[in-house]
Amino acid sequence: MDLMSFFRAKKPATAQLARDRLMVAVAWQRDNDGRRNAGPSYLPQLREELLAVVRKYVQVADGAVQVNVQREDGLEVLEMNIALPEARPGS
Amino acid sequence: MDLMSFFRAKKPATAQLARDRLMVAVAWQRDNDGRRNAGPSYLPQLREELLAVVRKYVQVADGAVQVNVQREDGLEVLEMNIALPEARPGS
Repeated sequence: MDLMSFFRAKKPATAQLARDRLMVAVAWQRDNDGRRNAGPSYLPQLREELLAVVRKYVQVADGAVQVNVQREDGLEVLEMNIALPEARPGS
Repeated sequence: MDLMSFFRAKKPATAQLARDRLMVAVAWQRDNDGRRNAGPSYLPQLREELLAVVRKYVQVADGAVQVNVQREDGLEVLEMNIALPEARPGS
């Protein structure tokens, strides 16, 4: 399994939903020494800034950005899935 | 298969390599109409800015950031894997 497989599996099945997509994932993974329980204090702000950069380049409606956060022991994953607006030819 | 599984599988196997890690993945996926062959023109710059945001928060040596780009038909994935410096307690 690799990351290519994951993103490829995200492809919508129907032609009607076909759209170019941009996906951004931010994962923080704790080492296994068990001493530290919380992520870095800057993690929420880092995520906000990453999202702001994406939104600067990709002007999309709020509804076009799906944000999903998953947490499991020692691992936090933030995933942004963005349906891009119709591209102009050559853009 | 989900993104959690992917990032969890990235965990180093040995205690010596145990480190907190930050992973950022940016994927661009073309729709399947076959008309557009290139990614958005802003994609390289967007990636640079995302990397710059990460480096602003995480001050690490160049060697601590692994960047990997994979391309397949209709899908491009940029992956950054960053070994974080030792955290101060409570940070």
